[in-house]
This record gives sequence, structure tokens and C-alpha cells, in this order.
Amino acid sequence: MDKEQRTEIETIGEFGLIDLISKNTSLKHPGSLKGIGDDAAVLGPTDLVRVVTTDMLLEGVHFDLSYTPIKHLGFKAVAVNVSDVAAMNAIPTQVTISIALSNRFSVEAVETFYEGVNLAAEHYNVDVIGGDTTASRSGLVISVTAIGEAKKEQISYRSGAKANDIICVTGDLGGAFMGLQVLEREKQVFLSDPNMQPKLNAYPYITGRQLRPDARMDIIHELRELDLVPSSMMDISDGLASELFHICKASDVGVAIYEDKLPMDKQTYDTAIEFNLDPITCVLNGGEDYELLFTIDQKDFPKLEKHPDIHFIGHVTAPDEGKVLITKSQTAVALKAQGWKHF
Amino acid sequence: MDKEQRTEIETIGEFGLIDLISKNTSLKHPGSLKGIGDDAAVLGPTDLVRVVTTDMLLEGVHFDLSYTPIKHLGFKAVAVNVSDVAAMNAIPTQVTISIALSNRFSVEAVETFYEGVNLAAEHYNVDVIGGDTTASRSGLVISVTAIGEAKKEQISYRSGAKANDIICVTGDLGGAFMGLQVLEREKQVFLSDPNMQPKLNAYPYITGRQLRPDARMDIIHELRELDLVPSSMMDISDGLASELFHICKASDVGVAIYEDKLPMDKQTYDTAIEFNLDPITCVLNGGEDYELLFTIDQKDFPKLEKHPDIHFIGHVTAPDEGKVLITKSQTAVALKAQGWKHF
Repeated sequence: MDKEQRTEIETIGEFGLIDLISKNTSLKHPGSLKGIGDDAAVLGPTDLVRVVTTDMLLEGVHFDLSYTPIKHLGFKAVAVNVSDVAAMNAIPTQVTISIALSNRFSVEAVETFYEGVNLAAEHYNVDVIGGDTTASRSGLVISVTAIGEAKKEQISYRSGAKANDIICVTGDLGGAFMGLQVLEREKQVFLSDPNMQPKLNAYPYITGRQLRPDARMDIIHELRELDLVPSSMMDISDGLASELFHICKASDVGVAIYEDKLPMDKQTYDTAIEFNLDPITCVLNGGEDYELLFTIDQKDFPKLEKHPDIHFIGHVTAPDEGKVLITKSQTAVALKAQGWKHF
Repeated sequence: MDKEQRTEIETIGEFGLIDLISKNTSLKHPGSLKGIGDDAAVLGPTDLVRVVTTDMLLEGVHFDLSYTPIKHLGFKAVAVNVSDVAAMNAIPTQVTISIALSNRFSVEAVETFYEGVNLAAEHYNVDVIGGDTTASRSGLVISVTAIGEAKKEQISYRSGAKANDIICVTGDLGGAFMGLQVLEREKQVFLSDPNMQPKLNAYPYITGRQLRPDARMDIIHELRELDLVPSSMMDISDGLASELFHICKASDVGVAIYEDKLPMDKQTYDTAIEFNLDPITCVLNGGEDYELLFTIDQKDFPKLEKHPDIHFIGHVTAPDEGKVLITKSQTAVALKAQGWKHF
């Protein structure tokens, strides 16, 4: 949308669109035998296990084009799927990108979207091997499938946590959620008075967290270097509390986490106060941070102890001990999983 | 939609929906190490190459729920992706199914959709290993990714056709297109007078071709038994002429096909006449038959010569001979690829 020229998609047609998309893709992985251009992509034989994950993003449900730069959207569509690959402790290798476009979208807008896709493909070292392009009667729909690889014994499932494991979280939480609140507020201000300039400059970190999340592949690579396989792992897309509930259910365990250990950026905290929201609720239930939540055996603690971006927020307990948050005043309260509700 | 009871999706939520979907799935392939229930599915190591294909189906673009039974839609969503796997001469093994639902859809409608998905999964012997469920502000959106396997030397690309190869087509063509014309006509009749009963009984074959296409895995299995690898192959989703153009471009060849060899069912022919359409145009440009188009070396002809459902429609030529249709009066006319236009 940030280009002046506007070419209608119907002038180049579906095959012109496919040519345009495939022109900037190249295959880097030896396992990618065939990419875009046949009935299916072809991946070579492998001694590794492959992980497969897929996510659909819909305009009006997952993103709002009135404040989402379309290039960032292309990046994010890849990043959120790579994050699911990371959550299995695997290395992403290929993605497919499907888009359904209404006639609001020009050829230039599609090019800008794929600039974001290709930027992410380079950043995460994945090949764009295929996809589908079609018309949409309503908004933009994006569907991405990501494929990754790992040794079988490196895979981290949700089901491997055991009592006394240490619960770890990367980065900080609640930022993407607070960024969304700011973007929605400024949109309302703009809608009520289009002469008002949105005040986003004061919130660069949290709006960036919302608009251009980064999958934590850096942590996955570090875990490999440290020869450390988490006993369980997930990425935090629906909110920390909700993800902890998934691990408890899959692993048949309880958890105890500490309020004063929860990682939060100062801008997230300040903005929550400004919005009259409880910062801890934002950290526990805010979604879309795409940080990693994982558990490790106590013997592995020394390997991570000094890591500047991994936080030890609690420990795994027996299932009958439940899921509790220990407040700053040392009170144990039952954890609630609010999560995202699309329905 | 064919059940009396109506339960709103919000009463069971996204996780209730996932439980409902996963309850009827089971993993049959030894290569499916982990299905629904984690951040990603996990596939075991393999000596084979894997093919990956994805397709998105949107309400109002690819299907009309006013005459499409939702169970058939679930079947078709899997079948069209399996057809792409077949088109690589591979055997499908896994699928992921993503759906975006508006609040028009009840839990019962989703169950009916997955009955169709599971029926197809059983029919094609594939495991449903994952997907995504989300809300939609507008219509139903379905995105399927299918994975298949083959020995590397068994894969048929579009690019392998060479001069003098024989062009083969399975089944008959144009039926799905004519079925769509009937369904659209009866819809208009119904809209103008809801007391009118749609007259579909006279067109069982062609409406079935449109609503419940079948991927030709039977042919793929037979080709394996015959130890025959087509020199090139595609499935016919956009129309025979359009697919021939793809093979010509990818293989740098020309083609000559014979009007009197084009396979057409009598119901397709009769209905085309009834609609004042040229039957041959329907056969050449009607989409969605999901039959296979492939080329074979002349030495392989005896293996298929007596096959009741494979038709030899022409031969591959040098690129400078162009793409021609030899009419019944022995006139060579240039082939035109009209195909489907979504944009």
C-alpha cells in the first residue's frame, strides 16, 4: 500500500501473480528439491523428523489493515508459523504461503506483502516452496504452513514436563497485547477525527511487538549449542496462563509460578497503568508475544542460569497441587486461563 | 446443516472445537509420529521424497453453500489436495485442515464437515495431523495442506514431456463444469420462486462430479503396479487446455490433440447441448474434473493400451509445432487456454 502506482490484479491474472511471487524466491535448503511451479513441492529424503504446522490469518479477526503495514503482515504470517516450529525445538526449513485477495488489493500491495514474506524467509532461513493464490469476496485471508526438522530425540512436546522441572520464559510478556490496545485506541481517535495524528511514537516497543513479532529461533539455536532439550515447550501465542494450562493437561502436572518473576518491559507496565489495566493480568493473559515457554530438568539449570533473556518463573508440581500464582505477598492464588477468544 | 439440533460454537469454544475435531481422527501411518494436539505435527524420517501441496477454498468463490452439502465439501477439500499429490505420482499420507467459521455455523455443521473430511481421509488412507480453527467475519474459508510420498525416481513433474510422447487423460471431462451450470440454474429458479423444486434428478452424474469429485489415486496405484512412471503429469483442475499449456511451457514442447479422442460422458454432452454450449469447449476448458493428464513414452503404450479408463488423446510435438487441436474434419486449429479465472 506504500507505493504510488496501482495495477489491478486482473490485468496480470492468477498466473501472472504466481510468476511475480515466484520470481523472488530461491531454494537454499538441499532438502527443497522443487519449489513453486508444479502441482506440489518436493522435499528430499531425511534422517530427521519433520514437523508441520499451519495457521490461518483473517482480516478483521487477526489483523486490521488500517494500522498494519502490509509488509509487516507478510513477515508476521511467516514468523508466527516459524514460532510453532521453534516450539517443537525444531529448525524451520520450508513454508507455503496461500493468500485470498479481494479486488481492493493491487499488484503492488501483493508485491509489498511478499517483500515481508521474503524478508522473513531470509531471516529464518526458510524456503518458500509453494502456496495458493485466489480471489476473496471479502477480506484478505492468509494461510501459511511451515515445515521444520530436528533429530527425533530433540523434539520437545507439551507432554514431557515433570514435577520439580523449572519453568522458563524467554523475553518479556504482555507487550503485544498492550501494543494492540494502543493501536486500537489511536484508530478510534483517527476515525472520530481524521485530522488527528495517531500518537504511536511514544510506544515504539509495544506496537512493534504487535505488528512485527519475532519467533525466538535464536533461543532454539542456543539450546542446541548447549545440548539442552527442554522437557516440554510451547510458544506463547494465546497468553502465558493459557499455555501453562495446556502443558499441565498434556503432561498431567501442576505448576506454581511467581508474580515477581514474570518478565515485563517498562513500556508494557506503564501503558497498562495508563489504560487502567492490571499489568500482571496483561502478562498472564496477553497473547501474541511469540516468546517461548519451556520446562527444564533441574540438572540443566546451570546451563541457562546466566542467560540474559531467559527467566525462571516457577516450577512444575504434582497434578493435585493445581495451577497457582504466588503473589508478591506470598499468597497462592489459583491461576486462570483467559486466553484469546476468537469465537 | 442436515441435523436438527443447533449448538453455537461459542458454547464450546475453540478448544472444545479442537477436542471435537480430534476425537474422530486416528493415526494410521507409521510416519505420523504426532498428530493434532501440539504446536506442530511430527513426521518420522523417510527414505522417500515428500511432496507438499496446499489449496484454499472460499465460500462465494469456490463453493456455494446453498447447493453444496457441507459433508461433501469436507470430502472435496481433502480430495482436491490429494489430487495434487496424485499429480506428482505420489501416495498421500497426511493432511492438515484449517477452517475459518462465521457464527452462521453451528457445532453440528462443523461435525458434518469433519464427517466428510474423515470419510475422505479413510478413502485416501491419509492421517489428519493438524490444522487451525478460527472465526471468520464473513464466509467459510477452508485451507488444506496435503503431504505425500514417493521414491525420487517415481515423481512426475510437469517438465518431463518430450516429443512423440503419448498424451493420456483419465475418466471423462467437462462433467463438473456442466454440473455447476445445472446447480447454478436451479439455484436461480429457486431464488425466483422458492416453491419450485430444483430439478437435479435428471443430472446425477454431472452434479456429483461437481459436488463430490474423486482424486484418481486408483490410477496412481495401477501405474505403480505396471511399473510405469509418466514422463509428465498434472491433475485437471483448471481445464484440459490450460493444463496442456502448463506442460508445454514447463517441458518446452508442443502438443497435438484430437477432437474425436476427447473423453466425454453422454450426460455432459446432452446437458451442454441443452445449455446451448459447445460440448468440445466444455471438455477443453471446464475445470474441476480432477482427472489426470499425463504423458508416456511410446514404449510404455502397450502397458496401458487396454485400460478401460485411460484415453490417448494426442501426442507431444516439437515446441515450434505449437499447441493444436485436430478437429473431426482433420483441420488443425490453435488450442486456446481459457481456464478458470478467479480474478
